[in-house]
Amino acid sequence: MNVFLIGTGLIGGSFALDLKSVMKRARIFGIDQSEKHLDEALENGLIDERAEWEDLPKADFVYLAIPVDASLKVLPEILDLVKDDCLVTDAGSTKEQLCKTVEGHPKRRNYLAGHPIAGTEFSGPSAALHGLFRNKTNIICEVEKTAFKLQERALEVFNAIGMRIRYMDPASHDRHIAYVSHLSHISSFMLGKTVLEKEKNERDIFDLAGSGFASTVRLAKSSPAMWTPIFNQNKKNVLETLDEYISNLQQFRDLMENDNFEEVYNEMEKTNHIKDVLNGITQDEQLKLLENGK
Amino acid sequence: MNVFLIGTGLIGGSFALDLKSVMKRARIFGIDQSEKHLDEALENGLIDERAEWEDLPKADFVYLAIPVDASLKVLPEILDLVKDDCLVTDAGSTKEQLCKTVEGHPKRRNYLAGHPIAGTEFSGPSAALHGLFRNKTNIICEVEKTAFKLQERALEVFNAIGMRIRYMDPASHDRHIAYVSHLSHISSFMLGKTVLEKEKNERDIFDLAGSGFASTVRLAKSSPAMWTPIFNQNKKNVLETLDEYISNLQQFRDLMENDNFEEVYNEMEKTNHIKDVLNGITQDEQLKLLENGK
Repeated sequence: MNVFLIGTGLIGGSFALDLKSVMKRARIFGIDQSEKHLDEALENGLIDERAEWEDLPKADFVYLAIPVDASLKVLPEILDLVKDDCLVTDAGSTKEQLCKTVEGHPKRRNYLAGHPIAGTEFSGPSAALHGLFRNKTNIICEVEKTAFKLQERALEVFNAIGMRIRYMDPASHDRHIAYVSHLSHISSFMLGKTVLEKEKNERDIFDLAGSGFASTVRLAKSSPAMWTPIFNQNKKNVLETLDEYISNLQQFRDLMENDNFEEVYNEMEKTNHIKDVLNGITQDEQLKLLENGK
Repeated sequence: MNVFLIGTGLIGGSFALDLKSVMKRARIFGIDQSEKHLDEALENGLIDERAEWEDLPKADFVYLAIPVDASLKVLPEILDLVKDDCLVTDAGSTKEQLCKTVEGHPKRRNYLAGHPIAGTEFSGPSAALHGLFRNKTNIICEVEKTAFKLQERALEVFNAIGMRIRYMDPASHDRHIAYVSHLSHISSFMLGKTVLEKEKNERDIFDLAGSGFASTVRLAKSSPAMWTPIFNQNKKNVLETLDEYISNLQQFRDLMENDNFEEVYNEMEKTNHIKDVLNGITQDEQLKLLENGK
């Protein structure tokens, strides 16, 4: 099987590593606009060889993992080039515009819209991790628009590397993911900004910051090149989450200002319940591990 | 040495565990208003026996680790009771009011104001961890107001359990810690609130939330009983940080609204620099490990 990896960064590279361990006969071709990334991807064994755009007709499986603005441009071009039984899937964090872009494409049935909920705050081929996708969710949108045989091929691979599948329509995906992912990134970036602005003498941050601060600003290390187009494409939903977040912060601030610390307590106590939600994630992952162990 | 642990939760309990491993002859007496906590602390070997308020005159070392509103009330009472060469230190997250409360106390010299930058989002005796304080910073305020011999006794213990020491005045402590700790907690609680309010069907959160979300809302599991009085005592500084944070979020929101994604990119790119700050924390900890290894 000829697998074409378009984008050899954290997500594409990690996918290639997992794919190689479950499909020994897969040959992985890398396409990336960065020569440096291609070199790194070869050195780290993420890809078997470099490829060019004009090699795409020999692909059986294309995995697209590049910033979402670039995906809008290249996905139709990829579909133009691939053969009739080639599966094309992607890892983009927004799905509505991308699905719209190809809805009338003659090879729409070759495309499966995906979004693996996996990643770290690092980027580039050297950030690729074996096992990054194990027990993670891959959200699939508009599955009914993909050819049945290609759905099957995709699910086989996703199952083999340990992902669970959830199906959603693109609009719901973008709305939900604005809350549980995009907002977290902005909250983290702005927290980092606020503290950096204030604490010019960074030595003070080193000494006073604990693991709590590190945890809340971790996502502020993420790649702006990846995140800017995500916020752009998901603007409506992200603005809505930001307005609600700002309003909640403002309300908390006013409770403090007015010395209503009973309500400050209640606000936190009600939200403590997030424990169960987060434990739910963990238990769910444990359950999956047990299932996999059978 | 008779050590009195007042408050047998996460911080007090972890301190007791570390103390026992470096001072074999220490006998640890526990005082806690919760019978359940005292039972747990005994069962988990955090304390050797329960004690009462009236036993305090036999203490050589008192470690106070209770919510900061309760500390304001009990620290003067503890100082009233202890003998002349007893060291009293604490772990409270705010220092200005507490230092003010005891500034005229006849036994002010027995007290060393401390704040270990260590903890987890969990609470209670069963959350105590051995080694929690290793390579963590203990901020000491107004060290010059503590008797020299008692400073020495405290530093010996803090060094033995692997803490590094930084000296600050209480007002600077409270101002800096509002940025690198208190604000993180509010940002996390309000993020949790925003998402919980929106996502009534929690099953959706389980499936869509990744490690990024978990990391940014982790602190929303923290104890409201501990954090409400912290925000109350540090109200002025926390309001200032919140206003700056809200203003940064609002500005980011407006850039998005106005489709100024070039500036959205720049905002994130400038803040990416937080990497170096966080790496600084890590390198500093590594350096300390090397030093300890000598």
